[in-house]
Amino acid sequence: MAKDQKKQPRPRAETPKGFRDYFGADVTERKAMLDRIAEIYHRHGFDPLETSAVETVEALGKFLPDVDRPNAGVFAWQEEAVPGGGSGDWLALRYDLTAPLARVAAQFRNDLPSPYRRYAMGPVWRNEKPGPGRFRQFYQCDADTVGSASVAADAEICAMLADALEAVGIARGDYIVRINNRKVLNGVLEAAEVRADQAEDVLRQIDKFDKVGRDGVLALLTVGRKDDSGAVIEGVGLTEAQAAPVLAFLTSKGADNAATLDNLRAAVGASAIGAEGVDELAEIAGLLVAMDVAEDRAVIDPSVVRGLGYYTGPVFEAELTFEILDDKGRKRQFGSVAGGGRYDGLVERFTGQKVPATGVSIGVDRLLAALRAKGLAGTEAQGPVVVTVMDRDRMADYQTMAAELRAAGIRAEVYLGNPKNFGNQLKYADKRGGPVAIIQGGDEAARGVVQVKDLVLGARIAAEASLDEWKAQPAQTEVPRADLVAAVRRIIG
Amino acid sequence: MAKDQKKQPRPRAETPKGFRDYFGADVTERKAMLDRIAEIYHRHGFDPLETSAVETVEALGKFLPDVDRPNAGVFAWQEEAVPGGGSGDWLALRYDLTAPLARVAAQFRNDLPSPYRRYAMGPVWRNEKPGPGRFRQFYQCDADTVGSASVAADAEICAMLADALEAVGIARGDYIVRINNRKVLNGVLEAAEVRADQAEDVLRQIDKFDKVGRDGVLALLTVGRKDDSGAVIEGVGLTEAQAAPVLAFLTSKGADNAATLDNLRAAVGASAIGAEGVDELAEIAGLLVAMDVAEDRAVIDPSVVRGLGYYTGPVFEAELTFEILDDKGRKRQFGSVAGGGRYDGLVERFTGQKVPATGVSIGVDRLLAALRAKGLAGTEAQGPVVVTVMDRDRMADYQTMAAELRAAGIRAEVYLGNPKNFGNQLKYADKRGGPVAIIQGGDEAARGVVQVKDLVLGARIAAEASLDEWKAQPAQTEVPRADLVAAVRRIIG
Repeated sequence: MAKDQKKQPRPRAETPKGFRDYFGADVTERKAMLDRIAEIYHRHGFDPLETSAVETVEALGKFLPDVDRPNAGVFAWQEEAVPGGGSGDWLALRYDLTAPLARVAAQFRNDLPSPYRRYAMGPVWRNEKPGPGRFRQFYQCDADTVGSASVAADAEICAMLADALEAVGIARGDYIVRINNRKVLNGVLEAAEVRADQAEDVLRQIDKFDKVGRDGVLALLTVGRKDDSGAVIEGVGLTEAQAAPVLAFLTSKGADNAATLDNLRAAVGASAIGAEGVDELAEIAGLLVAMDVAEDRAVIDPSVVRGLGYYTGPVFEAELTFEILDDKGRKRQFGSVAGGGRYDGLVERFTGQKVPATGVSIGVDRLLAALRAKGLAGTEAQGPVVVTVMDRDRMADYQTMAAELRAAGIRAEVYLGNPKNFGNQLKYADKRGGPVAIIQGGDEAARGVVQVKDLVLGARIAAEASLDEWKAQPAQTEVPRADLVAAVRRIIG
Repeated sequence: MAKDQKKQPRPRAETPKGFRDYFGADVTERKAMLDRIAEIYHRHGFDPLETSAVETVEALGKFLPDVDRPNAGVFAWQEEAVPGGGSGDWLALRYDLTAPLARVAAQFRNDLPSPYRRYAMGPVWRNEKPGPGRFRQFYQCDADTVGSASVAADAEICAMLADALEAVGIARGDYIVRINNRKVLNGVLEAAEVRADQAEDVLRQIDKFDKVGRDGVLALLTVGRKDDSGAVIEGVGLTEAQAAPVLAFLTSKGADNAATLDNLRAAVGASAIGAEGVDELAEIAGLLVAMDVAEDRAVIDPSVVRGLGYYTGPVFEAELTFEILDDKGRKRQFGSVAGGGRYDGLVERFTGQKVPATGVSIGVDRLLAALRAKGLAGTEAQGPVVVTVMDRDRMADYQTMAAELRAAGIRAEVYLGNPKNFGNQLKYADKRGGPVAIIQGGDEAARGVVQVKDLVLGARIAAEASLDEWKAQPAQTEVPRADLVAAVRRIIG
C-alpha cells in the first residue's frame, strides 16, 4: 500500500480552472450583505426558496435544442441507467435561479400561494471559458413574484430594491432605480411603422445607446456608421422619419416623471400598446409615491435599454451613481448592480398555461465590490485575541484565559502550534489580524499577572517610533490576572 | 417557432431523483441554526471557508482507484479538451467538506496561518441510490484545526461543540459529548497480543458493541455467535484471555473521569502507545475543566467506538440524551448528532508532509430534526400581514398601508392576485400564515377607517364558536386609518 502510493504521482492541489475559494472576510462580508437584503425581502412578504443545485437538463430547458452538446454553457452529465437506480437522465448544475423557479412554480403549482413571492440566494454555475475576474461559479440573489399580472408587483420590486440597497449601506443619492417598459418601445416601433422583421435589429442597435449616444444610434438605425476601428457597421435601413420616434423614446427623460410620461405619450403616437405601456409606467410612478419612494430613489427613465429584448413589460435597473477610480486611475460611475423586469412563459413550457411573473436579480459580487470601494464592508476588526503559550505545561491556564474572554463575548483563541519559538507566536497573532496578544510566563504566573499586548498600537509604534519610545513598550501593559477581560476590553473598545 | 414548440413534448417539472427543494421555514430555520453555530465557531477563533462546489476528481482523491468508473459515489463529468479552454480533466461535485479542506490546506499552505482553524457549512453531493429520507444533496457543518499536534486542539473542539449545542437551544443535560481515543484501543490490542492481521476484524466487531452488548462482542471476538435470524457469524478467534482487555476497555467508563482513566490504565497494561493514549485523555479531561466544561457536558467514555477505525487519536461524538417517539411510537433516545476526531494524512497526499489535524462534523439535518422535536425551531409566526384589495383602483392606498407597516418593522404585503373574489384573498392570507388581514372598501375609505382582522383568533372562533359568537365577529375590529400600525401591533404583540 505504502509502496503503491509512492509510485503514484501526487495529485495537484488546485481548484479546477475558473473556480475559487472564499476565505474569512470574503465569506462573512458577503453573508452580512445578503442577510441584510434577505431581511428586507422577508419584510416585503417574500419567502426564501432554496432549490437543489442539480436539475435535469430537460427541466432547465434552455439548452435542449443542442442535443449533441447538452453541456454547452452548463455543466452536465448523464446518469448511468441502472435498474432501480440511475435514470439515464442528463443532469446539470443550475446556470441561474430563474430556471429552477420556473420548475418549482410548475411542480408545486397546487401547493404554493398564488401570487408566489420568493427570494433565492446561492451559487450558480456556467461552463464558460474562465478569464480574469470571470468565474464559473458565482452567487446570484433574486426576488420574483410569480402569478401577478398587476404592475403593482413591479412597483413593489423597485421599491424593495431601493430599500435593499439602503439596507446594505448605500446612501440615498448614491443609487437610482431606473424604470422603462418594453411595451412603450413596442408602441414606438408601431408608431414608426418598423416592419416586424426589422424589430430585432432595431433592438440590437438601441442597446448601444449607452456607448454610441443619440447620433450613433440614429446612424445605426438608418444608413450605418463606421466604428472606432474604421469598420463599417450596416444600418437597419429605417428612414430618418422612422428613426425619429425611436430616438424620441430613448431621450424622453424629462425633469420629473410627469414630464417624462408626457414625452413618452408623444413618442408612441396613436399606438394602443404604446399607450398601455405609458399607462403602466404612470401607474408604477403613482405606486412608488404611495410607498414613499421619491424620484431620487426610483424614476421612470426610457434610456434603460438593457434587457428590453428579453422582458415583456416593465424593465428596471439599479445603478450606483458615485464615482470610483477604474484600473487606470480614471474616475467613472460605479454603474449597474441589479436588473430585472416582467417576463412571460416562465411556467408555460411545463404546463401550457401562461403565468405572469416579474423579478429582479442583484449582482452579488458587484454590489459587494461597491461596498468595499465605499469602505462599507470589512471595516470591523475580525481577528481573535491570541493567548500565547510561554509554558507548554500550563496549557490549561491559557485555555482558561481564552474561555473567560469568550464567555465575555470576546473572540479569543490559544496558540496551538509548536510553542518553542515565541517569535512565531507573535507572527501568528499578526497573521490572524488579532488586536491583542496575551502573554504569561512562569514569572508572571507566580506574581498573578498577565501581559496584555496591544498589537495594533504595537504595529504603529514599530513603524513610526524612535528607539527610546519603542523600548518603553507602551503597547504592552501588565495587569492582575483577574483584570484580564477588563484590560482587553479597554483596548478593543 | 410556435408550431415547433407545440410538437415538442412538455418537459417534466420535477427535481431529479434524490434531490429536493427547501421552502420558507425549511430555509430560515436551518439558517438560524447554522448562524448560531457559526457565531460560536467564530468566537473560538475559527474562520469561515467556502470552497467551490466543483473539484477535480484528482484532488478529491478517494475515487481515483476506480479509473473505469470515476463517478462511483460522486457526480463526475469530463471536461471537453479544447485548446485554450476546457482541460479534459474529470471534475466532480464535492462529496464532503474534508476533502476540499485537504486541497485548500495544501494549495494555500504558505499563506494560511498555522495552525489553521476553519469552519465550513454547505451542501455536499453523493451519487448514491436515493431512498426515503436519503437525499443526494445535503448540508454538512464542519470545524477543523489543521496543523496542531496538541490535544488542546481536540479538547477545544469538544468544548466548542458543547457550546454550539447550547447555542442552538439544546439544554445542558439534554446532550453529552463523549470522548475516546484510538491510541488507547491500540494499547489494549497490544496488551491482548492481538495479531496485526486480526486488528481490523477486532475493530469491526467492537463497532457492534452498541447493538449486541458486552456478551455479544465477547462471542464475536472469540468463537462467534448466531444472529437473530439464526445465521452463524464467525468469531475473530481470540482467546477469552485476549478478549478480556478489549471488553475491559469498552466497559471502563467509571463514575467520573478519574475512575474511567484508572480503569483504562489497567486495560492497556504495559503498552506504551496505550499509556500515551490514556495520558492524552487525561490531558483533555484537565483542559475541559480549565475551560469550565464539566463532565455533565463532555466526558471520557470508552464505549464510543464509531469512527475508531478511521481516526488516529482522540475520537468524539455528541449525543442528544432526551427521548423522542420513533416511527412506531416507542420512546428512544434521539442519539448522535455530531462526530469527529484526529486524523493524519490530510495534506500528505498532496505534499508528502504529514500534517496533524482534528475536527468535528455536525449532522445538520439530524440536529434540525432534534430542534423541531423539542419545539425549538419554527415556533415564531412567519407569515406577513396581508393587505387585501377591495377596490382595484385604490392599489396605491393599499401599498401605502403595507409600506407603513413595513416601516414599523412589521412584515406586510398587498394581495397581488386577481382581487375579484374576496374569499380567495382570505384563503391566500390563510395559506401565507398571515396573522392579520387588513380590509378597506370604499365605504371604510370614505369614513377614514380600516378593518383589522385577527386571523389567528378568527380561525379559533371558526373552529369553536357558536353561530351567535361567530356573528359578533370579535376577530374583526374597525379602527381609524391613522391607527393602523398600532392596531396591528396590539394583535401580533
